[in-house]
Amino acid sequence: MTSLKRDYPWSKAPLIANGPMRLVALPALTVEVSNAGGLGFLGVGSDASQLEEFLKETQSLVKQSTALSSFADGAVLPIGIGFLLWAGDDLLQATLPLLKATPPAAIWLYAHSHISQAKQWTIATREATNNLTKIWIQVGTVAEALEVTTECQPDVLVIQGQDAGGHGLLHGAGIMPLFPEADDAVTALCASKGLTKPALLAAGGIMEGRGVAAALALGAEGVVMGTRYLASSEAHLAKGYQEAILAAEDGGINTARGTLYDRLRGTTDWPSRYGGRGVLNESWFDDAKGLTFEENKKRYDEAVANSEGEHGWGKTARLTTYAGSGVGLARKVQSAAAITAEVREEAKKFLKRAGEGFSQ
Amino acid sequence: MTSLKRDYPWSKAPLIANGPMRLVALPALTVEVSNAGGLGFLGVGSDASQLEEFLKETQSLVKQSTALSSFADGAVLPIGIGFLLWAGDDLLQATLPLLKATPPAAIWLYAHSHISQAKQWTIATREATNNLTKIWIQVGTVAEALEVTTECQPDVLVIQGQDAGGHGLLHGAGIMPLFPEADDAVTALCASKGLTKPALLAAGGIMEGRGVAAALALGAEGVVMGTRYLASSEAHLAKGYQEAILAAEDGGINTARGTLYDRLRGTTDWPSRYGGRGVLNESWFDDAKGLTFEENKKRYDEAVANSEGEHGWGKTARLTTYAGSGVGLARKVQSAAAITAEVREEAKKFLKRAGEGFSQ
Repeated sequence: MTSLKRDYPWSKAPLIANGPMRLVALPALTVEVSNAGGLGFLGVGSDASQLEEFLKETQSLVKQSTALSSFADGAVLPIGIGFLLWAGDDLLQATLPLLKATPPAAIWLYAHSHISQAKQWTIATREATNNLTKIWIQVGTVAEALEVTTECQPDVLVIQGQDAGGHGLLHGAGIMPLFPEADDAVTALCASKGLTKPALLAAGGIMEGRGVAAALALGAEGVVMGTRYLASSEAHLAKGYQEAILAAEDGGINTARGTLYDRLRGTTDWPSRYGGRGVLNESWFDDAKGLTFEENKKRYDEAVANSEGEHGWGKTARLTTYAGSGVGLARKVQSAAAITAEVREEAKKFLKRAGEGFSQ
Repeated sequence: MTSLKRDYPWSKAPLIANGPMRLVALPALTVEVSNAGGLGFLGVGSDASQLEEFLKETQSLVKQSTALSSFADGAVLPIGIGFLLWAGDDLLQATLPLLKATPPAAIWLYAHSHISQAKQWTIATREATNNLTKIWIQVGTVAEALEVTTECQPDVLVIQGQDAGGHGLLHGAGIMPLFPEADDAVTALCASKGLTKPALLAAGGIMEGRGVAAALALGAEGVVMGTRYLASSEAHLAKGYQEAILAAEDGGINTARGTLYDRLRGTTDWPSRYGGRGVLNESWFDDAKGLTFEENKKRYDEAVANSEGEHGWGKTARLTTYAGSGVGLARKVQSAAAITAEVREEAKKFLKRAGEGFSQ
């Protein structure tokens, strides 16, 4: 039995998780992903003020879920929760009592200002939940994978490639070369130090069954998808944002990563090594043409004020449409459960098809 | 039988090709790749003045090759040749008589200034070689894949992701999201227009068996590797360059794509949409610190003048080390034949392993 099947007994292999997209992945989405045999992550982010409410809603949804109800009174809530560590110690202190009272199956740690934060969260969570809550940590380079494994010995390393939507390292490789190199480095490190190797999951540019199959061929035990779940019926986002996701194509030239969108939105707390990937829009084009940030910000603020839930997103507008470079593969809205089950089954089919091609 | 097996009858599936790295992939490397059941490409680039000599050397090596000698007197030379189309009509006119006299199994067309060049090369080559020479065209976006398929109807589309080393589009997606979206778009286009769908190969960040397996899982019929072959004994490059390839790690943060290295080298002919990915070095760091180009160029020229074949490359030096972001997976020098056979066999093994993971 793999550690993933042991730690998330309702789950099916390969494990499919949603990225804990801040205030987009809420209880409805999260529970549906777990309900379909994946591991759903709540996108709590940097602010725990709504976490208690989210946990109550999650518990209620878990009880109603066919596949999960038998886990409703178990030791752990069959979902995970994602946190942004740059938020600092206040977030950890506000979170710990809630984790202790209702241990989730996992927490996902991301974007520390210093590695000591990841270590502190890991130790404190394991202690508060008596090791019931497993530690997932997201990294984007080989160097980060080694540092995090050494310092924190997480249960799961999420290795994110450069194609990911939303926040990620400003500079990095795609998952295709990054995953095998990180895997080899972590394997060697764990062997030399006598550490248990964490389970490795792949993220960044994985949108459907072919991407999942490819990640498994690289050696991943599971995958994380963000952008694909933006096109789920349970994603908590404006209709206009979701429509812009469905409309976008050819993300290599129609999305980019940078800090402009964060600066326009006033989201300036992220460590400087991160930037957000989003659909290129009027803000981006104006910036490229040399418009001053002040004027660009003014136009952005006007666009926000005039937005009505359906308008304001996409290529010819200004509201930020965070999305990965695989956004062109998000083509219809489905339930988060349907997405989870579909990509898992497609992946097995594509692996089989690819393997059979070489029987001669 | 696939079109690849029909057109390159000495080859084994999945097809492994080397990128036609200009003046690095010469006859010795090229013939060894084909000899091992792949398709070797000569990196002729923008200047045909040595092509006749390369073809003679290739013919001689093919005759000596165990696996290829039976193809030595066949209709086509069992290798391909890569050309850079921005070089213009002179290159085509100088090349055509040679292709007619000694048709290679394929030509690889890349980096046109206008799509009409790709169309002209395609038509002229098919006419000159009586369709014996197959047309490969490299693209880097979904839009390019559609345009090239519509205008040229190539035999093979090479879809290159952003992790590739050397020249590629300045902006683009990694192969993980790019390949499936391009495949779907080309499939739909060919169905709607009644065209024969080209064979699709994946390139960019593929370094070894896991990457090949992943590319096949995405739906590719074969792959192209560049950086991996820089670590082959037949690669025509300075020892110092090759040592820098072996030394580089974590390419997401230690390589980058841009135009700086081209400008330092005086290579200014590429269309503006392209840039080269290389190992970050003193030139790059100085530029990032704000050093003027003039002073940077002066330091570069001095470094070139003082280079002695072994010194001058890598992170703490100045000579350009073009490499993909998977460079950390190039760990030893092997023959091009050994690389070709190894990644092909590993890929089958990794696909099998990944598929077997889900028999429960």
